[in-house]
Amino acid sequence: MDYDADLPGHVERELTRFLREAGAAIQHTEPGFSSGVDALTEFVLRGGKRLRPTFAWWGWRGTGGEPADADGVLRAVASLELVQACALIHDDLIDSSDSRRGRPTVHVAFADMHTAERWLGPPAAFGLATAILIGDLALAWADDMFSAAPLPAPTLERARPAWRAMRTEVLAGQFLDVRTQASGDTTPEAALRVNRLKTAAYTVERPLHLGAALAGAAQSQIATLREFGRDLGVAFQLRDDLLGVFGDPSVTGKPAGDDLREGKRTLLIALGLRLARDEQAAAITEALGEPSLTESDVDVVRKTLTEVGAVAAVEQRIDELTYTALAALDRAHLTEPAATHLADLAGKATQRTY
Amino acid sequence: MDYDADLPGHVERELTRFLREAGAAIQHTEPGFSSGVDALTEFVLRGGKRLRPTFAWWGWRGTGGEPADADGVLRAVASLELVQACALIHDDLIDSSDSRRGRPTVHVAFADMHTAERWLGPPAAFGLATAILIGDLALAWADDMFSAAPLPAPTLERARPAWRAMRTEVLAGQFLDVRTQASGDTTPEAALRVNRLKTAAYTVERPLHLGAALAGAAQSQIATLREFGRDLGVAFQLRDDLLGVFGDPSVTGKPAGDDLREGKRTLLIALGLRLARDEQAAAITEALGEPSLTESDVDVVRKTLTEVGAVAAVEQRIDELTYTALAALDRAHLTEPAATHLADLAGKATQRTY
Repeated sequence: MDYDADLPGHVERELTRFLREAGAAIQHTEPGFSSGVDALTEFVLRGGKRLRPTFAWWGWRGTGGEPADADGVLRAVASLELVQACALIHDDLIDSSDSRRGRPTVHVAFADMHTAERWLGPPAAFGLATAILIGDLALAWADDMFSAAPLPAPTLERARPAWRAMRTEVLAGQFLDVRTQASGDTTPEAALRVNRLKTAAYTVERPLHLGAALAGAAQSQIATLREFGRDLGVAFQLRDDLLGVFGDPSVTGKPAGDDLREGKRTLLIALGLRLARDEQAAAITEALGEPSLTESDVDVVRKTLTEVGAVAAVEQRIDELTYTALAALDRAHLTEPAATHLADLAGKATQRTY
Repeated sequence: MDYDADLPGHVERELTRFLREAGAAIQHTEPGFSSGVDALTEFVLRGGKRLRPTFAWWGWRGTGGEPADADGVLRAVASLELVQACALIHDDLIDSSDSRRGRPTVHVAFADMHTAERWLGPPAAFGLATAILIGDLALAWADDMFSAAPLPAPTLERARPAWRAMRTEVLAGQFLDVRTQASGDTTPEAALRVNRLKTAAYTVERPLHLGAALAGAAQSQIATLREFGRDLGVAFQLRDDLLGVFGDPSVTGKPAGDDLREGKRTLLIALGLRLARDEQAAAITEALGEPSLTESDVDVVRKTLTEVGAVAAVEQRIDELTYTALAALDRAHLTEPAATHLADLAGKATQRTY
């Protein structure tokens, strides 16, 4: 199909069109709102791998999606990027992150604008307020874009359970993540639970489910495809966890060991804590969430995680999950070229270095 | 119709049912998320005037809504309370408000829980994170509830433009409000612009529009009904502004002069600043946003606002808007009992003391 070759490009074209139309009326009557709409537009179009629309698209293509629906499906799956914009903008606030993809985060950009304009009150409060509202706008517009996709009503209707579950699950995952960090739950079970909701369900399983539901796939095929998504999604996050500590900054674009400084409670860390001797575990705990960790501090933690076998255990888990994922993909009997594309994505997502 | 007599009660019943169902699956698999779902449920069911569903209901009833659709319409209009929950939870964060309706706000309640549990990190950051996510959940669930209302697809579809506009407008209004406060724009025009979006459009005009669209009313009737809503909505907010400075705390439930302490840039204040002599204006400006204002400080501002004619000007504006609103309602030719109910609501909303 025409869109297969450059899916991210087509997704961006749909987003550009939607954002222009959705913002037109209100920006015309309320020019003061333009900076908000512009910030969202710039954030959404600045980049990203468009992973969620990609999984949804191949889920639809591989389960017999009606070619006549292609334009509508493209629009519907592109709206996943607006859900993601809300998640990232609000996540950056929650984590107090200053930059994303080499640019200031939304709340920081608005606080800077406040300072430059010499406005009243604290710049940070202004940044917080605007970032909350711009994230909300992204979430409301995600629904508007999805609901306005030019598809027959019953087609959209059968995809709604996946759409609903996906949005609730990502919020539940973020909530549990915040709660797990606060309560200091360092068990591997807690890390896996957050993984399953925040990455596996939200990034892979539900987008595939959404696509297959749009195609009208049988429940049994959807169930098998979701198995693939679940295992692949967890494996994907585990690779991310390894890269967050061991990744090459020149390839990942993030400072080395940044996950340690941010104090992320990943499965890698949880296994490290469980397998380490007491004094090693104490050293890991001390490093976690310490913003001033030096490169050599990071190296000490890396050595410990490797020596106690946590790295090998996570690598093995990735291998096992990739294996079971690919077996499920095989059993899902997708049509080509979707089957090959999804197998490729699985390989890339779990073996990447970036 | 059965629901006319106790609309708030029926709205609450629908909300109770939806919240129980929407939370059931995720709370079962992820009990750690229960405190989030429970907080939202408690917030939504704790009370409120259910104004937006009420306007939407009478908009539908008065423009020939199909009695067979009553259950579906009740469900669809009840979802407006979930949009409102998001708006209030996030607004309380933006304003750093500690209490609402005599109870701690969501972010304060979660910060308190964090303290009580002796969890890690700053309690305020935990309160912020959870309140952002719970507000997001309310917004996502508002769409889920609206979209799942048991109505024929074309009925729901024709109400979507109103649904879309309402959510974008309230966010635009909040954004402009934050921006106006920050930039120190004290003109009456800026105050009215925020009024029109944040209250008039969101609370009255769009709910009426939504109801009439669900009924399949003619465009001309919808336009006239929206005129009524626009004028009534602004008048409603102007009454609120007066009560925020002059209201009797034993009736409003808020400390006297609280709007002054919060530094709200209302039309009343804007007119006061414009009409006052320089030293009077300086005294108003000094009082605005000063949390430690005493009762007698508030009294000084009250006297100035009255003496310079700002109070009389706002009262006159309320009268004029009520008059033009009722004239539009008359021209909208609604059926009974909707016409009488809406005229009553208009009288109560603009003449209330609470």
